[in-house]
Amino acid sequence: MPFCKNSRLNIPNLLVGGAVKVEKKELLYEGKAKRVYRTNDENIVWIEYKDSATAFNGEKKAEIAGKGRLNNEITSLLFSKLKENDIESHFLKKVSETEQLVKRVNIIPLEVIVRNFAAGSFSKRLGVEEGKKLNYPLVEFCLKNDDLGDPLVTDDQIDVLEIATKDDVSSLKDRAKEVNQVLTGFFQEIGVRLIDFKLEFGKDLEGNILLADEVSPDTCRLWDIETNEKLDKDVFRRDLGDLNNAYETILGRLGGPTHV
Amino acid sequence: MPFCKNSRLNIPNLLVGGAVKVEKKELLYEGKAKRVYRTNDENIVWIEYKDSATAFNGEKKAEIAGKGRLNNEITSLLFSKLKENDIESHFLKKVSETEQLVKRVNIIPLEVIVRNFAAGSFSKRLGVEEGKKLNYPLVEFCLKNDDLGDPLVTDDQIDVLEIATKDDVSSLKDRAKEVNQVLTGFFQEIGVRLIDFKLEFGKDLEGNILLADEVSPDTCRLWDIETNEKLDKDVFRRDLGDLNNAYETILGRLGGPTHV
Repeated sequence: MPFCKNSRLNIPNLLVGGAVKVEKKELLYEGKAKRVYRTNDENIVWIEYKDSATAFNGEKKAEIAGKGRLNNEITSLLFSKLKENDIESHFLKKVSETEQLVKRVNIIPLEVIVRNFAAGSFSKRLGVEEGKKLNYPLVEFCLKNDDLGDPLVTDDQIDVLEIATKDDVSSLKDRAKEVNQVLTGFFQEIGVRLIDFKLEFGKDLEGNILLADEVSPDTCRLWDIETNEKLDKDVFRRDLGDLNNAYETILGRLGGPTHV
Repeated sequence: MPFCKNSRLNIPNLLVGGAVKVEKKELLYEGKAKRVYRTNDENIVWIEYKDSATAFNGEKKAEIAGKGRLNNEITSLLFSKLKENDIESHFLKKVSETEQLVKRVNIIPLEVIVRNFAAGSFSKRLGVEEGKKLNYPLVEFCLKNDDLGDPLVTDDQIDVLEIATKDDVSSLKDRAKEVNQVLTGFFQEIGVRLIDFKLEFGKDLEGNILLADEVSPDTCRLWDIETNEKLDKDVFRRDLGDLNNAYETILGRLGGPTHV
Protein backbone atom coordinates (compact mmCIF):
# COMPACT_ATOMS: atom_id res chain seq x y z
CA MET A 1 0.00 0.00 0.00
CA PRO A 2 2.40 2.68 -1.21
CA PHE A 3 -0.01 5.58 -0.64
CA CYS A 4 -1.03 4.49 2.85
CA LYS A 5 -0.53 7.04 5.61
CA ASN A 6 -1.95 6.49 9.06
CA SER A 7 -3.57 9.60 10.42
CA ARG A 8 -6.01 9.59 13.31
CA LEU A 9 -8.94 11.78 14.14
CA ASN A 10 -12.00 11.53 16.36
CA ILE A 11 -15.32 11.86 14.62
CA PRO A 12 -18.68 10.33 15.50
CA ASN A 13 -19.05 6.83 14.11
CA LEU A 14 -21.73 6.87 11.48
CA LEU A 15 -23.08 3.45 12.34
CA VAL A 16 -23.28 3.31 16.09
CA GLY A 17 -23.09 6.99 17.07
CA GLY A 18 -20.04 6.52 19.28
CA ALA A 19 -16.67 8.26 18.94
CA VAL A 20 -14.06 6.21 17.08
CA LYS A 21 -10.67 7.03 15.71
CA VAL A 22 -10.88 7.37 11.94
CA GLU A 23 -7.69 6.11 10.39
CA LYS A 24 -6.51 6.82 6.87
CA LYS A 25 -5.87 3.53 5.06
CA GLU A 26 -4.88 2.60 1.52
CA LEU A 27 -5.58 4.58 -1.62
CA LEU A 28 -8.84 3.54 -3.25
CA TYR A 29 -8.82 5.82 -6.26
CA GLU A 30 -6.84 8.69 -7.69
CA GLY A 31 -8.68 11.18 -9.87
CA LYS A 32 -7.51 14.29 -11.70
CA ALA A 33 -7.97 16.56 -8.66
CA LYS A 34 -8.31 14.28 -5.62
CA ARG A 35 -7.09 11.08 -3.99
CA VAL A 36 -9.62 8.93 -2.15
CA TYR A 37 -8.47 6.68 0.70
CA ARG A 38 -10.24 3.94 2.57
CA THR A 39 -10.54 4.38 6.33
CA ASN A 40 -11.14 1.92 9.15
CA ASP A 41 -14.83 2.84 8.88
CA GLU A 42 -16.38 1.34 5.76
CA ASN A 43 -18.85 4.24 5.62
CA ILE A 44 -16.19 6.92 5.54
CA VAL A 45 -13.54 7.79 2.98
CA TRP A 46 -10.67 10.22 3.33
CA ILE A 47 -10.25 12.77 0.55
CA GLU A 48 -7.01 14.51 -0.26
CA TYR A 49 -7.16 17.47 -2.62
CA LYS A 50 -4.28 17.58 -5.09
CA ASP A 51 -2.49 20.62 -6.48
CA SER A 52 -3.24 19.49 -10.05
CA ALA A 53 -5.13 21.72 -12.43
CA THR A 54 -6.62 20.04 -15.51
CA ALA A 55 -8.92 21.23 -18.26
CA PHE A 56 -10.36 20.08 -21.58
CA ASN A 57 -10.72 16.49 -20.37
CA GLY A 58 -7.11 16.38 -19.14
CA GLU A 59 -5.52 17.78 -22.31
CA LYS A 60 -4.24 20.86 -20.47
CA LYS A 61 -2.65 20.29 -17.10
CA ALA A 62 -0.39 21.93 -14.54
CA GLU A 63 0.68 21.63 -10.93
CA ILE A 64 -0.29 24.72 -8.95
CA ALA A 65 1.04 24.65 -5.39
CA GLY A 66 -1.70 25.60 -2.96
CA LYS A 67 -4.65 24.78 -5.21
CA GLY A 68 -5.52 21.64 -3.27
CA ARG A 69 -5.79 23.63 -0.04
CA LEU A 70 -8.00 26.26 -1.67
CA ASN A 71 -10.47 23.75 -3.11
CA ASN A 72 -10.58 21.76 0.12
CA GLU A 73 -11.20 24.90 2.19
CA ILE A 74 -13.84 26.29 -0.19
CA THR A 75 -15.64 22.95 -0.61
CA SER A 76 -15.66 22.39 3.17
CA LEU A 77 -17.12 25.86 3.72
CA LEU A 78 -19.75 25.52 1.01
CA PHE A 79 -20.87 22.03 2.05
CA SER A 80 -21.20 23.31 5.63
CA LYS A 81 -23.21 26.31 4.49
CA LEU A 82 -25.43 24.07 2.37
CA LYS A 83 -26.05 21.85 5.39
CA GLU A 84 -27.15 24.90 7.42
CA ASN A 85 -29.75 25.27 4.66
CA ASP A 86 -30.91 21.65 5.00
CA ILE A 87 -29.02 20.42 1.95
CA GLU A 88 -27.24 17.25 2.97
CA SER A 89 -24.04 16.17 1.29
CA HIS A 90 -21.44 13.47 1.76
CA PHE A 91 -19.25 15.98 3.65
CA LEU A 92 -18.45 15.10 7.24
CA LYS A 93 -15.46 17.13 8.39
CA LYS A 94 -12.38 18.99 7.25
CA VAL A 95 -9.33 17.09 8.53
CA SER A 96 -6.49 19.34 7.39
CA GLU A 97 -5.90 22.18 4.98
CA THR A 98 -5.99 19.71 2.08
CA GLU A 99 -8.06 16.83 3.46
CA GLN A 100 -11.63 16.07 4.40
CA LEU A 101 -13.68 13.09 5.50
CA VAL A 102 -16.79 12.23 3.58
CA LYS A 103 -19.47 9.60 3.73
CA ARG A 104 -18.80 6.80 1.31
CA VAL A 105 -21.24 6.80 -1.59
CA ASN A 106 -21.54 5.13 -4.96
CA ILE A 107 -21.30 7.97 -7.44
CA ILE A 108 -24.13 8.17 -9.95
CA PRO A 109 -22.24 8.40 -13.28
CA LEU A 110 -23.76 11.73 -14.30
CA GLU A 111 -22.37 15.22 -14.12
CA VAL A 112 -25.27 17.46 -13.15
CA ILE A 113 -24.77 20.93 -14.59
CA VAL A 114 -26.80 23.96 -13.57
CA ARG A 115 -26.64 27.08 -15.72
CA ASN A 116 -27.95 30.51 -14.74
CA PHE A 117 -26.08 32.34 -17.50
CA ALA A 118 -24.75 31.07 -20.84
CA ALA A 119 -21.04 30.26 -20.78
CA GLY A 120 -18.43 27.70 -21.75
CA SER A 121 -19.50 24.64 -23.74
CA PHE A 122 -23.16 25.74 -23.69
CA SER A 123 -22.33 29.04 -25.40
CA LYS A 124 -19.99 27.39 -27.87
CA ARG A 125 -22.22 24.44 -28.82
CA LEU A 126 -25.45 26.40 -29.08
CA GLY A 127 -24.17 29.77 -30.28
CA VAL A 128 -25.40 31.77 -27.27
CA GLU A 129 -23.37 34.79 -26.17
CA GLU A 130 -21.38 34.17 -23.01
CA GLY A 131 -22.90 36.01 -20.07
CA LYS A 132 -26.47 35.99 -21.41
CA LYS A 133 -28.91 35.37 -18.55
CA LEU A 134 -31.07 32.32 -19.17
CA ASN A 135 -34.84 32.58 -18.76
CA TYR A 136 -34.57 30.18 -15.83
CA PRO A 137 -31.90 27.91 -14.31
CA LEU A 138 -31.21 25.08 -16.72
CA VAL A 139 -30.17 21.60 -15.57
CA GLU A 140 -28.13 19.41 -17.96
CA PHE A 141 -26.60 15.97 -17.58
CA CYS A 142 -23.32 14.68 -18.95
CA LEU A 143 -22.28 11.05 -18.83
CA LYS A 144 -19.30 10.78 -16.46
CA ASN A 145 -16.88 9.04 -18.81
CA ASP A 146 -13.45 10.50 -19.49
CA ASP A 147 -12.83 8.20 -22.45
CA LEU A 148 -15.91 9.61 -24.16
CA GLY A 149 -15.20 13.20 -23.05
CA ASP A 150 -18.21 13.37 -20.68
CA PRO A 151 -20.82 13.75 -23.45
CA LEU A 152 -24.10 15.60 -22.94
CA VAL A 153 -26.99 13.14 -22.50
CA THR A 154 -30.72 13.73 -22.73
CA ASP A 155 -33.18 12.44 -20.14
CA ASP A 156 -34.39 9.85 -22.65
CA GLN A 157 -30.85 8.66 -23.41
CA ILE A 158 -30.21 8.27 -19.67
CA ASP A 159 -33.36 6.18 -19.41
CA VAL A 160 -32.93 4.00 -22.49
CA LEU A 161 -29.30 3.25 -21.59
CA GLU A 162 -30.29 2.61 -17.95
CA ILE A 163 -27.67 5.08 -16.68
CA ALA A 164 -30.17 6.19 -14.01
CA THR A 165 -33.89 5.75 -13.42
CA LYS A 166 -36.45 8.41 -14.35
CA ASP A 167 -37.14 8.92 -10.64
CA ASP A 168 -33.46 9.48 -9.92
CA VAL A 169 -33.14 11.93 -12.82
CA SER A 170 -36.14 13.86 -11.56
CA SER A 171 -34.72 13.86 -8.03
CA LEU A 172 -31.29 15.01 -9.26
CA LYS A 173 -32.90 17.91 -11.12
CA ASP A 174 -34.86 19.00 -8.06
CA ARG A 175 -31.82 18.81 -5.80
CA ALA A 176 -29.59 20.60 -8.26
CA LYS A 177 -32.11 23.46 -8.42
CA GLU A 178 -32.26 23.64 -4.61
CA VAL A 179 -28.46 23.76 -4.42
CA ASN A 180 -28.49 26.47 -7.06
CA GLN A 181 -30.95 28.60 -5.16
CA VAL A 182 -28.91 28.43 -1.95
CA LEU A 183 -25.51 28.88 -3.64
CA THR A 184 -26.74 31.79 -5.76
CA GLY A 185 -27.76 33.53 -2.53
CA PHE A 186 -24.40 32.87 -0.80
CA PHE A 187 -22.41 34.14 -3.71
CA GLN A 188 -24.60 37.18 -4.25
CA GLU A 189 -23.91 38.21 -0.64
CA ILE A 190 -20.19 38.22 -1.40
CA GLY A 191 -20.47 40.06 -4.71
CA VAL A 192 -20.11 37.02 -6.93
CA ARG A 193 -22.38 35.91 -9.76
CA LEU A 194 -22.89 32.14 -9.98
CA ILE A 195 -22.80 31.61 -13.76
CA ASP A 196 -22.96 27.79 -13.81
CA PHE A 197 -21.64 24.79 -11.90
CA LYS A 198 -21.25 21.03 -12.00
CA LEU A 199 -22.45 18.71 -9.23
CA GLU A 200 -22.09 15.02 -8.65
CA PHE A 201 -24.36 12.90 -6.52
CA GLY A 202 -23.96 9.48 -4.98
CA LYS A 203 -26.05 6.91 -3.17
CA ASP A 204 -25.16 5.83 0.35
CA LEU A 205 -25.46 2.22 1.52
CA GLU A 206 -29.18 2.77 2.25
CA GLY A 207 -29.77 4.09 -1.28
CA ASN A 208 -30.25 7.73 -0.26
CA ILE A 209 -29.08 10.24 -2.85
CA LEU A 210 -26.49 12.64 -1.41
CA LEU A 211 -24.67 15.59 -2.93
CA ALA A 212 -21.04 14.50 -3.32
CA ASP A 213 -17.72 15.41 -4.98
CA GLU A 214 -16.86 19.09 -4.48
CA VAL A 215 -18.23 22.60 -4.91
CA SER A 216 -15.33 24.92 -5.67
CA PRO A 217 -13.99 27.31 -8.31
CA ASP A 218 -12.88 24.16 -10.14
CA THR A 219 -16.53 23.17 -10.61
CA CYS A 220 -18.32 26.56 -10.63
CA ARG A 221 -18.07 29.58 -12.91
CA LEU A 222 -17.89 32.58 -10.59
CA TRP A 223 -17.78 36.14 -11.89
CA ASP A 224 -17.34 39.29 -9.84
CA ILE A 225 -20.75 41.02 -9.91
CA GLU A 226 -19.25 44.47 -10.53
CA THR A 227 -16.36 43.78 -12.88
CA ASN A 228 -17.25 40.36 -14.41
CA GLU A 229 -13.72 39.27 -13.44
CA LYS A 230 -13.49 35.49 -13.64
CA LEU A 231 -12.77 33.92 -10.25
CA ASP A 232 -12.76 30.26 -11.29
CA LYS A 233 -10.97 27.61 -13.36
CA ASP A 234 -11.50 29.62 -16.55
CA VAL A 235 -8.48 31.63 -15.30
CA PHE A 236 -6.48 28.45 -15.95
CA ARG A 237 -8.42 27.22 -19.00
CA ARG A 238 -8.05 30.55 -20.80
CA ASP A 239 -4.71 31.74 -19.34
CA LEU A 240 -6.27 34.79 -17.70
CA GLY A 241 -3.83 35.18 -14.82
CA ASP A 242 -3.03 33.62 -11.46
CA LEU A 243 -5.44 30.87 -10.48
CA ASN A 244 -4.52 30.97 -6.79
CA ASN A 245 -5.28 34.70 -6.59
CA ALA A 246 -8.75 34.10 -7.99
CA TYR A 247 -9.44 31.18 -5.64
CA GLU A 248 -8.05 33.09 -2.62
CA THR A 249 -10.46 35.92 -3.47
CA ILE A 250 -13.38 33.50 -3.32
CA LEU A 251 -12.13 31.88 -0.09
CA GLY A 252 -11.52 35.29 1.50
CA ARG A 253 -14.95 36.63 0.59
CA LEU A 254 -16.53 33.45 1.98
CA GLY A 255 -14.78 34.23 5.29
CA GLY A 256 -12.36 31.34 5.05
CA PRO A 257 -8.74 31.11 6.20
CA THR A 258 -6.84 32.80 3.38
CA HIS A 259 -3.07 32.83 2.94
CA VAL A 260 -2.91 36.39 1.58
CA MET B 1 -34.63 35.46 -61.44
CA PRO B 2 -31.77 33.37 -62.81
CA PHE B 3 -33.11 30.06 -61.49
CA CYS B 4 -36.65 30.57 -62.74
CA LYS B 5 -38.09 27.85 -64.94
CA ASN B 6 -41.72 27.79 -65.88
CA SER B 7 -43.28 24.37 -65.68
CA ARG B 8 -47.00 23.76 -65.49
CA LEU B 9 -49.05 21.07 -63.83
CA ASN B 10 -52.64 20.66 -62.74
CA ILE B 11 -53.17 19.88 -59.09
CA PRO B 12 -56.03 20.78 -56.76
CA ASN B 13 -55.65 24.27 -55.37
CA LEU B 14 -55.15 24.05 -51.64
CA LEU B 15 -57.13 27.16 -50.81
CA VAL B 16 -60.26 26.96 -52.94
CA GLY B 17 -60.35 23.31 -53.88
CA GLY B 18 -60.40 24.04 -57.60
CA ALA B 19 -57.93 22.89 -60.24
CA VAL B 20 -55.25 25.44 -61.07
CA LYS B 21 -52.04 25.25 -63.00
CA VAL B 22 -49.10 25.13 -60.59
CA GLU B 23 -46.18 26.96 -62.10
CA LYS B 24 -42.59 26.72 -61.00
CA LYS B 25 -41.26 30.18 -60.17
CA GLU B 26 -38.00 31.49 -58.75
CA LEU B 27 -35.60 29.67 -56.48
CA LEU B 28 -36.36 30.32 -52.82
CA TYR B 29 -33.61 28.29 -51.20
CA GLU B 30 -30.88 25.86 -52.18
CA GLY B 31 -29.86 23.30 -49.59
CA LYS B 32 -27.26 20.55 -49.67
CA ALA B 33 -29.62 18.02 -51.30
CA LYS B 34 -32.57 20.01 -52.66
CA ARG B 35 -33.62 23.21 -54.36
CA VAL B 36 -36.89 24.82 -53.28
CA TYR B 37 -38.83 26.99 -55.73
CA ARG B 38 -41.77 29.29 -55.20
CA THR B 39 -44.87 28.53 -57.29
CA ASN B 40 -47.83 30.66 -58.31
CA ASP B 41 -49.63 29.24 -55.27
CA GLU B 42 -48.27 30.69 -52.02
CA ASN B 43 -49.17 27.47 -50.21
CA ILE B 44 -47.17 25.22 -52.51
CA VAL B 45 -43.44 24.97 -53.14
CA TRP B 46 -41.70 22.99 -55.85
CA ILE B 47 -38.85 20.74 -54.69
CA GLU B 48 -36.04 19.58 -56.95
CA TYR B 49 -33.81 16.80 -55.63
CA LYS B 50 -30.14 17.31 -56.46
CA ASP B 51 -27.54 14.69 -57.30
CA SER B 52 -25.29 15.94 -54.47
CA ALA B 53 -24.18 13.63 -51.69
CA THR B 54 -22.85 15.29 -48.55
CA ALA B 55 -21.82 13.97 -45.16
CA PHE B 56 -20.16 15.13 -41.93
CA ASN B 57 -21.86 18.52 -42.08
CA GLY B 58 -20.76 19.08 -45.68
CA GLU B 59 -17.10 18.17 -45.18
CA LYS B 60 -17.38 15.19 -47.53
CA LYS B 61 -19.22 15.75 -50.77
CA ALA B 62 -19.69 14.29 -54.23
CA GLU B 63 -21.98 14.49 -57.22
CA ILE B 64 -23.67 11.15 -57.87
CA ALA B 65 -25.75 11.16 -61.05
CA GLY B 66 -29.16 9.62 -60.40
CA LYS B 67 -29.19 10.15 -56.63
CA GLY B 68 -31.72 12.99 -56.86
CA ARG B 69 -34.15 10.74 -58.75
CA LEU B 70 -33.77 7.93 -56.21
CA ASN B 71 -34.45 10.15 -53.20
CA ASN B 72 -37.36 11.85 -54.88
CA GLU B 73 -38.93 8.50 -55.88
CA ILE B 74 -38.36 6.93 -52.46
CA THR B 75 -39.57 9.96 -50.51
CA SER B 76 -42.68 10.26 -52.70
CA LEU B 77 -43.45 6.56 -52.14
CA LEU B 78 -42.88 6.70 -48.39
CA PHE B 79 -44.89 9.89 -47.84
CA SER B 80 -47.75 8.31 -49.82
CA LYS B 81 -47.54 5.15 -47.76
CA LEU B 82 -47.49 7.18 -44.55
CA LYS B 83 -50.60 9.04 -45.69
CA GLU B 84 -52.39 5.72 -46.24
CA ASN B 85 -51.66 5.16 -42.55
CA ASP B 86 -53.13 8.52 -41.55
CA ILE B 87 -49.80 10.26 -41.14
CA GLU B 88 -50.05 13.59 -42.92
CA SER B 89 -47.00 15.25 -44.40
CA HIS B 90 -46.26 18.26 -46.55
CA PHE B 91 -46.10 15.98 -49.64
CA LEU B 92 -48.65 16.71 -52.36
CA LYS B 93 -47.51 15.07 -55.58
CA LYS B 94 -44.55 13.80 -57.51
CA VAL B 95 -44.05 16.03 -60.56
CA SER B 96 -41.16 14.33 -62.32
CA GLU B 97 -38.44 11.80 -61.55
CA THR B 98 -36.55 14.43 -59.55
CA GLU B 99 -39.29 16.85 -58.51
CA GLN B 100 -42.24 17.00 -56.17
CA LEU B 101 -44.76 19.53 -54.94
CA VAL B 102 -45.18 20.06 -51.24
CA LYS B 103 -47.25 22.23 -48.99
CA ARG B 104 -45.35 25.28 -47.86
CA VAL B 105 -44.46 25.10 -44.16
CA ASN B 106 -42.20 26.96 -41.80
CA ILE B 107 -39.66 24.38 -40.73
CA ILE B 108 -39.27 23.94 -36.97
CA PRO B 109 -35.48 24.24 -36.51
CA LEU B 110 -35.05 20.80 -34.95
CA GLU B 111 -33.85 17.56 -36.45
CA VAL B 112 -35.98 14.86 -34.87
CA ILE B 113 -34.03 11.62 -34.69
CA VAL B 114 -35.58 8.25 -33.90
CA ARG B 115 -33.31 5.36 -32.98
CA ASN B 116 -34.34 1.70 -32.79
CA PHE B 117 -30.78 0.39 -32.78
CA ALA B 118 -27.52 2.08 -31.73
CA ALA B 119 -25.52 3.44 -34.67
CA GLY B 120 -23.62 6.45 -35.97
CA SER B 121 -23.09 9.43 -33.69
CA PHE B 122 -25.10 7.79 -30.90
CA SER B 123 -22.76 4.79 -30.79
CA LYS B 124 -19.67 6.97 -31.04
CA ARG B 125 -20.66 9.61 -28.49
CA LEU B 126 -22.04 7.20 -25.89
CA GLY B 127 -19.84 4.16 -26.45
CA VAL B 128 -22.64 1.79 -27.43
CA GLU B 129 -21.90 -0.96 -29.93
CA GLU B 130 -23.35 -0.31 -33.38
CA GLY B 131 -26.31 -2.57 -34.05
CA LYS B 132 -27.33 -3.00 -30.39
CA LYS B 133 -31.12 -2.97 -30.11
CA LEU B 134 -32.33 -0.22 -27.78
CA ASN B 135 -34.84 -1.05 -25.03
CA TYR B 136 -37.38 1.12 -26.81
CA PRO B 137 -37.36 3.65 -29.69
CA LEU B 138 -35.46 6.72 -28.57
CA VAL B 139 -36.27 10.22 -29.83
CA GLU B 140 -33.52 12.86 -29.86
CA PHE B 141 -33.45 16.44 -31.06
CA CYS B 142 -30.63 18.31 -32.75
CA LEU B 143 -30.65 22.02 -33.39
CA LYS B 144 -30.84 22.58 -37.16
CA ASN B 145 -27.83 24.84 -37.57
CA ASP B 146 -25.07 23.96 -40.02
CA ASP B 147 -22.68 26.55 -38.56
CA LEU B 148 -22.92 24.81 -35.17
CA GLY B 149 -22.85 21.30 -36.70
CA ASP B 150 -26.46 20.49 -35.72
CA PRO B 151 -25.72 19.93 -32.00
CA LEU B 152 -27.77 17.58 -29.82
CA VAL B 153 -30.16 19.54 -27.60
CA THR B 154 -32.07 18.43 -24.52
CA ASP B 155 -35.77 19.13 -24.00
CA ASP B 156 -34.86 21.70 -21.33
CA GLN B 157 -32.36 23.45 -23.62
CA ILE B 158 -35.04 23.66 -26.33
CA ASP B 159 -37.39 25.22 -23.81
CA VAL B 160 -35.01 27.69 -22.16
CA LEU B 161 -33.72 28.90 -25.55
CA GLU B 162 -37.29 29.09 -26.88
CA ILE B 163 -36.42 26.95 -29.91
CA ALA B 164 -39.83 25.28 -29.59
CA THR B 165 -42.54 25.12 -26.93
CA LYS B 166 -42.88 22.20 -24.52
CA ASP B 167 -46.18 21.31 -26.21
CA ASP B 168 -44.54 21.25 -29.64
CA VAL B 169 -41.66 19.10 -28.35
CA SER B 170 -44.12 16.65 -26.85
CA SER B 171 -46.11 16.60 -30.08
CA LEU B 172 -42.97 16.08 -32.19
CA LYS B 173 -41.99 13.11 -30.02
CA ASP B 174 -45.42 11.50 -30.36
CA ARG B 175 -45.48 11.99 -34.12
CA ALA B 176 -41.94 10.74 -34.58
CA LYS B 177 -42.86 7.56 -32.70
CA GLU B 178 -45.96 7.07 -34.87
CA VAL B 179 -43.89 7.51 -38.03
CA ASN B 180 -41.38 5.04 -36.63
CA GLN B 181 -44.03 2.42 -35.98
CA VAL B 182 -45.42 2.67 -39.50
CA LEU B 183 -42.03 2.86 -41.25
CA THR B 184 -40.62 -0.03 -39.22
CA GLY B 185 -43.52 -2.14 -40.46
CA PHE B 186 -43.06 -1.12 -44.12
CA PHE B 187 -39.37 -1.84 -44.08
CA GLN B 188 -39.77 -5.13 -42.25
CA GLU B 189 -42.10 -6.32 -45.03
CA ILE B 190 -39.32 -5.72 -47.55
CA GLY B 191 -36.57 -7.32 -45.50
CA VAL B 192 -35.03 -4.11 -44.23
CA ARG B 193 -34.26 -3.15 -40.64
CA LEU B 194 -34.94 0.51 -39.81
CA ILE B 195 -31.96 1.35 -37.57
CA ASP B 196 -32.56 5.07 -37.13
CA PHE B 197 -33.77 8.08 -39.09
CA LYS B 198 -34.05 11.85 -39.06
CA LEU B 199 -37.27 13.74 -39.57
CA GLU B 200 -38.09 17.40 -39.92
CA PHE B 201 -41.42 18.99 -39.21
CA GLY B 202 -42.93 22.31 -40.17
CA LYS B 203 -45.97 24.41 -39.40
CA ASP B 204 -48.43 25.34 -42.12
CA LEU B 205 -50.08 28.75 -42.30
CA GLU B 206 -52.74 27.62 -39.82
CA GLY B 207 -50.08 26.50 -37.32
CA ASN B 208 -50.63 22.76 -37.83
CA ILE B 209 -47.51 20.64 -37.41
CA LEU B 210 -46.80 18.56 -40.54
CA LEU B 211 -44.08 16.02 -41.30
CA ALA B 212 -41.80 17.68 -43.90
CA ASP B 213 -38.41 17.42 -45.64
CA GLU B 214 -37.76 13.88 -46.91
CA VAL B 215 -37.70 10.23 -45.83
CA SER B 216 -35.06 8.45 -47.86
CA PRO B 217 -31.81 6.48 -47.54
CA ASP B 218 -30.17 9.90 -47.09
CA THR B 219 -32.05 10.34 -43.83
CA CYS B 220 -32.60 6.74 -42.65
CA ARG B 221 -30.18 3.97 -41.72
CA LEU B 222 -31.48 0.86 -43.48
CA TRP B 223 -29.85 -2.54 -43.06
CA ASP B 224 -30.76 -5.72 -44.86
CA ILE B 225 -32.43 -7.94 -42.24
CA GLU B 226 -30.55 -11.08 -43.33
CA THR B 227 -27.08 -9.77 -44.18
CA ASN B 228 -26.90 -6.42 -42.29
CA GLU B 229 -25.78 -4.90 -45.61
CA LYS B 230 -26.06 -1.12 -45.38
CA LEU B 231 -28.56 0.31 -47.87
CA ASP B 232 -28.28 3.98 -46.95
CA LYS B 233 -25.98 7.00 -46.96
CA ASP B 234 -23.43 5.18 -44.77
CA VAL B 235 -22.37 3.56 -48.09
CA PHE B 236 -21.15 7.05 -49.06
CA ARG B 237 -20.04 8.21 -45.58
CA ARG B 238 -17.91 5.10 -45.07
CA ASP B 239 -16.94 4.32 -48.68
CA LEU B 240 -18.71 0.95 -48.66
CA GLY B 241 -19.51 0.71 -52.36
CA ASP B 242 -21.94 2.14 -54.88
CA LEU B 243 -24.56 4.43 -53.35
CA ASN B 244 -26.94 4.19 -56.28
CA ASN B 245 -26.99 0.38 -56.10
CA ALA B 246 -28.00 0.56 -52.45
CA TYR B 247 -30.70 3.16 -53.09
CA GLU B 248 -32.01 1.25 -56.16
CA THR B 249 -32.33 -1.81 -53.93
CA ILE B 250 -34.53 0.13 -51.51
CA LEU B 251 -36.61 1.67 -54.30
CA GLY B 252 -37.01 -1.71 -55.99
CA ARG B 253 -38.08 -3.49 -52.81
CA LEU B 254 -40.60 -0.70 -52.14
CA GLY B 255 -42.11 -1.45 -55.57
CA GLY B 256 -40.92 1.80 -57.13
CA PRO B 257 -39.76 2.48 -60.71
CA THR B 258 -36.16 1.31 -60.67
CA HIS B 259 -33.60 1.84 -63.41
CA VAL B 260 -31.90 -1.54 -62.98
